[in-house]
Amino acid sequence: MAAAFKNAGHRIMQVYSPNLHNASLLAYHVGADATNELTGINADTDLFIISVKDDVIEQVAQTLAKHQKPMVHTSGSTSIDVLIKYTDKAGVLYPLQTFSKTREVDFINVPLCIEAVNGSMYTDLEQLAATVSNHIYSINSAGRKILHLAAVFACNFPNYLYGVAQQLLADHQMDFNLLRPLILETAQKVQQQVPTSVQTGPAVRNDQTTMAVHLQLLHREPQMQEIYTLLSQGIIKNNIDGHGDK
Amino acid sequence: MAAAFKNAGHRIMQVYSPNLHNASLLAYHVGADATNELTGINADTDLFIISVKDDVIEQVAQTLAKHQKPMVHTSGSTSIDVLIKYTDKAGVLYPLQTFSKTREVDFINVPLCIEAVNGSMYTDLEQLAATVSNHIYSINSAGRKILHLAAVFACNFPNYLYGVAQQLLADHQMDFNLLRPLILETAQKVQQQVPTSVQTGPAVRNDQTTMAVHLQLLHREPQMQEIYTLLSQGIIKNNIDGHGDK
Repeated sequence: MAAAFKNAGHRIMQVYSPNLHNASLLAYHVGADATNELTGINADTDLFIISVKDDVIEQVAQTLAKHQKPMVHTSGSTSIDVLIKYTDKAGVLYPLQTFSKTREVDFINVPLCIEAVNGSMYTDLEQLAATVSNHIYSINSAGRKILHLAAVFACNFPNYLYGVAQQLLADHQMDFNLLRPLILETAQKVQQQVPTSVQTGPAVRNDQTTMAVHLQLLHREPQMQEIYTLLSQGIIKNNIDGHGDK
Repeated sequence: MAAAFKNAGHRIMQVYSPNLHNASLLAYHVGADATNELTGINADTDLFIISVKDDVIEQVAQTLAKHQKPMVHTSGSTSIDVLIKYTDKAGVLYPLQTFSKTREVDFINVPLCIEAVNGSMYTDLEQLAATVSNHIYSINSAGRKILHLAAVFACNFPNYLYGVAQQLLADHQMDFNLLRPLILETAQKVQQQVPTSVQTGPAVRNDQTTMAVHLQLLHREPQMQEIYTLLSQGIIKNNIDGHGDK
């Protein structure tokens, strides 16, 4: 996000992290100063962006309160209330994307969810957000919690299942490259369509023979059997409820 | 697959389906005849491609046996043995991709898994496969079974979870478009990387607070709670076993 703001012409004044090495890495990348001293932070800024672990957001906000500057956090599962306690210019900028240090994301397509304590703060954040993303949504703290939960189902759990598949292949000396095009196509399909309408596989066909063979293949891994059964039951249930197509 | 063969310059002689309407749709698309009479099928061909439900493959092979032509099936979970019973030119062409009528797939990138009863049949199939795909793998029936199981974890189950996420948003009047870029990026990340090395989310951080909040949000859906718990446990276990990065 820091890189996206910088590329959009904003100036990142300073990057704080308790770990100075981490602060310096990002600071260098965006042409800012680095510090690991929260109490001595440079307050010559228009906005504090608090992007830290959920359970220390409030503590950081409390420390920064004395500067009386607008503050936002970037957390999906944290309410705006932890900031409202300390400033009358509180907001949230929640980018709904999975980030990793090894891969740069094209920020312009990242959905940015905004919440603000009042209309004037909302307008400011909306203008700021529009400089880096084409997909801005107004989502309050309750909605953001649901969204964060949904993101676990849509991102974290599928990635775990990719790993299960990769391990299955590795156990039998097969290459994960076999599955990579399938994984990509599965994600591309739902860019236009609704997931239940493009569900494939043995469960949606209620193909009991194949499912029994699969459970047998997993006989040494009871936890995998349990996952297989539970998710297959979910697919079968969706189909009975009439959401599915085939 | 028929379209891919046609586009590569091969001639599709005839398309059979017990449902003449379905046979005609595909036949029209690839410039072939259509029939719903298996016994009177046109045997003036170099290869029969048997692409039917798993439990009727053998029956179709038996009916076609009298023509003494090479035969392949396209099933992940069916052994080559059901064809070897009826021909000395048996093989398998298994395309590892998810197909839907509403979306054309670029076949050149689809992994094609080949098995054949002998070296000469293998060479023939390999030459044929090379005209439509750049990704040809030699996989025997035992390997193909594992591959098919792995594909369920890598494709069918993630798609089901996309649907769970979409339903969660719909229940709270939020748009699935919020999640679509995240889903795509999650799949794109593992095109170069190994899934366990890019795992994100509360479980891999062992963030018990967030996981408890998520389970509470799902309190009206015990089956979703069970899925959440089981997959989170899997991610935590991976991490303890030292596969994970963060």
